[in-house]
Amino acid sequence: MGKAVEMVELWRGGLLESTHRGHAVLCDEAGQIVQAWGDPDRIIFPRSSCKMIQALPLVESGAADAFGLSEAHLALACASHQGAALHVNMARDWLKDLGLGEPDLRCGSHEPYDRVERDRLICDHEGPCQLHNNCSGKHSGFLTFVKHQKAGPEYVELDHPLQKAIRAATEDVTGETAAGYGIDGCSAPNFAMSIAGLARGMAKFASSDGTGARGRAMQRLTRAMAAHPELVAGEGRACTELMRAMGGRVSIKTGAEAVFVAIMPEKKLGLALKIEDGNVRASEAALVGILSQLGVLDAAHPMAQKRLPAPQINCRGFTTGELRLSEGFV
Amino acid sequence: MGKAVEMVELWRGGLLESTHRGHAVLCDEAGQIVQAWGDPDRIIFPRSSCKMIQALPLVESGAADAFGLSEAHLALACASHQGAALHVNMARDWLKDLGLGEPDLRCGSHEPYDRVERDRLICDHEGPCQLHNNCSGKHSGFLTFVKHQKAGPEYVELDHPLQKAIRAATEDVTGETAAGYGIDGCSAPNFAMSIAGLARGMAKFASSDGTGARGRAMQRLTRAMAAHPELVAGEGRACTELMRAMGGRVSIKTGAEAVFVAIMPEKKLGLALKIEDGNVRASEAALVGILSQLGVLDAAHPMAQKRLPAPQINCRGFTTGELRLSEGFV
Repeated sequence: MGKAVEMVELWRGGLLESTHRGHAVLCDEAGQIVQAWGDPDRIIFPRSSCKMIQALPLVESGAADAFGLSEAHLALACASHQGAALHVNMARDWLKDLGLGEPDLRCGSHEPYDRVERDRLICDHEGPCQLHNNCSGKHSGFLTFVKHQKAGPEYVELDHPLQKAIRAATEDVTGETAAGYGIDGCSAPNFAMSIAGLARGMAKFASSDGTGARGRAMQRLTRAMAAHPELVAGEGRACTELMRAMGGRVSIKTGAEAVFVAIMPEKKLGLALKIEDGNVRASEAALVGILSQLGVLDAAHPMAQKRLPAPQINCRGFTTGELRLSEGFV
Repeated sequence: MGKAVEMVELWRGGLLESTHRGHAVLCDEAGQIVQAWGDPDRIIFPRSSCKMIQALPLVESGAADAFGLSEAHLALACASHQGAALHVNMARDWLKDLGLGEPDLRCGSHEPYDRVERDRLICDHEGPCQLHNNCSGKHSGFLTFVKHQKAGPEYVELDHPLQKAIRAATEDVTGETAAGYGIDGCSAPNFAMSIAGLARGMAKFASSDGTGARGRAMQRLTRAMAAHPELVAGEGRACTELMRAMGGRVSIKTGAEAVFVAIMPEKKLGLALKIEDGNVRASEAALVGILSQLGVLDAAHPMAQKRLPAPQINCRGFTTGELRLSEGFV
C-alpha cells in the first residue's frame, strides 16, 4: 500500500507542532486520474461523504417524484446537518407527509451540534430524538424509497432492497466491487472503496449531462446540494460556508474520519480526499488547498481562511498558531 | 528528523479506517533512553503534560508552604480539570485565601467539559468564567508564587519572574535549552523540548529521593497527582480513570495535541509520547499499550479497555469498530 503524504501542519510559536498525512485523487469525466497524492488505491470508508450516492435510488426509483420531494428535500437527503430547528422541523414534516414518524427512523439519537437547539433541549430537560441525528435527512430519504417500494421497515439491514440498490449504485459509479462494508454511526451500511473509486464517482456526478435516470438523478442531487448549502450542514460548518463561498459552482461533502469530496460540474472533475488520522481540521484545510489551487475557491475568502490558515485563537483571544499546507503538497 | 512510527489504528467492518503515528521515549533514572519509538529528538510542545514542571517554582520557592497549600491544592496546580463544581469551587476558595479573585487570573474562559456544570451555566444564562478554564488550578498556583514573591500581576509574560523560574526548572529537568516557546491555550508560555527531554524530566520526578528543594518538590507533586486523580482531570477522563486503575502507583498527565507523560516511581522510569496528528484517542490508546507492556497497568481493567480497544459505539448502541495497536508497536 502506498504511503500517505504530508498535507497539513499545525504551527505554534514558529515551530511545527502536529502533522497530518493523507491521500487524495482528482478524476476527470472519463474516470481517469488527473492528479493523485499518496495512494489512489487506498481503501477507505467514505462515511457521510457518499450521501449523494446513497440518495441515487431515492431519485432513480421515482420515489422522490412520487412523493413530490423538492430540491430542498434532496439537499437534506445528502446532508450531515447539525440538528438546528430548520433541519429537525423539515425532517419531521417530511416523515409526516409519508405517513410516518420519528420512531420509523433507524438512525438513533445524538446531541445536536447546533448550539441553540442543544441549549433548548438542555434547559427543557428534553433528550435529543432521532430527528436531531445529523443523518435524519438521509434516513428520511431512505424511508421515502421504502414507502414507495413497499419494502420492509428494517431498511438499514444489509439485505434490505434499499441497501442492495445502494450497493449496486455505489459499485456502478465507483467502477469497483465494494471492498467490504462497515456500519456507520447512523447504523446504515457504509461500503468501502478506493479513494480513486470515490473520486471517479464524484467525476461522474460532475460530468453528468442529465440524460437517463442515473444522469438526471446525479444532476438533481448535485444542484440540490449547491442550491441549499444551509441544509447540507449548517451555520458555521465547512460544507455550508465553502459552498456559499464558491457561489454554488461546486458541491462538497464531508465524511467522518476526515473524508471530503468535491463535485465540480464546470470542470467536470471529481475530488476525494482522506486524512489518514481522521482529523477534520486537516481534511478541511487540505480541501481548501486543493480547491484554491484548482481556481474554484478564492483562497483569500474569509470562509476559506477560516480553514486555512485557520488562525488558532486561545481563551483570551490571542492567535497562538495556524495551519499550513505541508511543503510540496499543492 | 526521524520518522514517526505507526502506533494506533481504527478498524471498522474488518478494515483499517484510520492510522495514528507518533513518537515515544522511556527514560531511566540516569536520564538514559531505555526504549524509543520514532524520533526521540523530535521537538514538541509538551502543552499541559508539563504542568508538574511548571509547578516546581510554586513548591521550591516556599510559596506553597507559606500559604498552607494542601496536597489537593498541588494536585489541582498540575491539573487540566474539567470545570466541575469540585474544581471551580476549590480554585475560587484558593484565590480567596490569597486575597485575590477570578479577575486576577490570566487564563481566559472556556465552556467547562463537565456536563453538569456546563448545563447549569446554559440554563442559568451564565457564561463560563476563568475558574472554569481547565488550567485555573495551574494559574492559582502561579498566583500563589506571584503573591509570595511580590511579583507583578502579568504573570504569563515571558520575562515575568515566574516564567523565568519555570524556564529554568524546565531546562534543568529536561537537560536541554528550550528549543523555543509557544503561547498555550491558557496564555502561558509553553517551552518546546525534545520528547527525550520530556521523558528525562519525568524520570527525574520518578526517581526523586525526596532530598533537596527540587527533590522534595518533585516527590510532593508526583504524590499529589496520584493521591487526587479526581482533581487532575475529572470523572470520565483518562488521567483520572487510569491513575485510579493503577492504584496511585503511577502519575500520568495528558497535554493538548496528543501528548502524554507517565511518572513511574516504583520503576524509576519516565515516559513521554506524542501522536503526530494531535488526536487524543490515539495518545490514550498508545499510553495504555505502553503502560500495559511495562506491567504497571492491567490491560484487562475496564478503564484501560475503554481506551484500548475502545469499542466504537454508534447512536443505536451497536459496536461499529475499535482501536488497535499497530503491528510491531509494543
